[in-house]
Amino acid sequence: MAEGANAVEAALSGGTVYELFVTERAAAQHAGLLDAAREAGVAVSPITDRAADGLSETVTPQGIVAVCALLDRPLEEAVTPAAKLVVVLVDVADPGNAGTVIRVADAAGADAVVLAGDTVDPHNGKCVRAAAGSLFHLPIARVRDVPAALAACSAAGLRTFAAHGYADAELDRVDLAAPTAWVFGNEAHGLPPDVLDRTDLAIRIPLYGRAESLNLATAAAVCVYTSAMAARR
Amino acid sequence: MAEGANAVEAALSGGTVYELFVTERAAAQHAGLLDAAREAGVAVSPITDRAADGLSETVTPQGIVAVCALLDRPLEEAVTPAAKLVVVLVDVADPGNAGTVIRVADAAGADAVVLAGDTVDPHNGKCVRAAAGSLFHLPIARVRDVPAALAACSAAGLRTFAAHGYADAELDRVDLAAPTAWVFGNEAHGLPPDVLDRTDLAIRIPLYGRAESLNLATAAAVCVYTSAMAARR
Repeated sequence: MAEGANAVEAALSGGTVYELFVTERAAAQHAGLLDAAREAGVAVSPITDRAADGLSETVTPQGIVAVCALLDRPLEEAVTPAAKLVVVLVDVADPGNAGTVIRVADAAGADAVVLAGDTVDPHNGKCVRAAAGSLFHLPIARVRDVPAALAACSAAGLRTFAAHGYADAELDRVDLAAPTAWVFGNEAHGLPPDVLDRTDLAIRIPLYGRAESLNLATAAAVCVYTSAMAARR
Repeated sequence: MAEGANAVEAALSGGTVYELFVTERAAAQHAGLLDAAREAGVAVSPITDRAADGLSETVTPQGIVAVCALLDRPLEEAVTPAAKLVVVLVDVADPGNAGTVIRVADAAGADAVVLAGDTVDPHNGKCVRAAAGSLFHLPIARVRDVPAALAACSAAGLRTFAAHGYADAELDRVDLAAPTAWVFGNEAHGLPPDVLDRTDLAIRIPLYGRAESLNLATAAAVCVYTSAMAARR
């Protein structure tokens, strides 16, 4: 379910929407969206405020919810030889973090996001909200098998870079212009040694102050954007 | 109040701690911290698990809480002519965002963070937790008067750069090596026009994909780290 006007708009433009539910008030506010939905052949059904509360996972429902097709694509469709930038999440536990990183990947022009290992379900409502529509903007693949995800990136011609707090190589010293897959690990535990071993290079973000680390979403933003800007320099 | 072993450790090393409260279990787990506190002349008081629950703002209290001095410093002590990188938050509403940006600023080696206008109180528990100790690592100033905050940065020899989604200048095209104060606005509304007018340059993060924006914390991470790395190149 995509909830709120922004998410519904993104779902209509990038995904498959089965049905749209709107309250009377939301219908008046978002007439353009409703027209777009009807033009796309999507059924639009009125609901009461109380029903909207029931469908919503948020405290202040916007009164507009789309029921969408599942989002994930096969790995080989998401990661192709045309890809220049891919983000791989390994065992990421927090849906808000996963959604935020998907939004960052989209903003940075990534070609795909691969949710590998035990990473959270991208259909989780918190992930959908944190992604702010980006779930519908780029292909998302889900793969249990982490080595298979990394192998697919290598086969597509991408270097695999592991973000790792104790790596020798520093982000500002590495050539980031070539096609890259960034690999990020669990919030608490990082990447397991066997995954680190399978990547081409482990890289750390230099810590110039006294903080011991960055959180996952800000670390991913720094790594992915530094690559995206370097590739266009 | 600094809650949890990491925050207490940071408070002991960087701030003024009045008293430390620990449960029996936490005392056994963190004997080294308790020794450090006693050596620093801090009173250590045992509390029950139930009292720890009462003091805690989290669902799973760690059983160790420090009562600390208020953190903020006068603007002129925080922003000095020696400063090379300063982060200014204007009207930032979410304490988790403020704390995350303070952690990013610390990691990037910033000299100070200025919380200007209606920005949240850094002593808010969510801010303290998101900052993960960084509140004690660099000076934090609180200033109602936003023009005064910007004037102090200019007087200290910093260029003031406003992060703004509709700016003409793109982050990857600007020379970021000189001393800089980055200015970030409210999560929903961004920076007001009169604040934009008072900064030297408005800069946007290039959006290479289809996302319409980044959230505050990830945008700040990209801007502040791009500056920090450029200054050391």
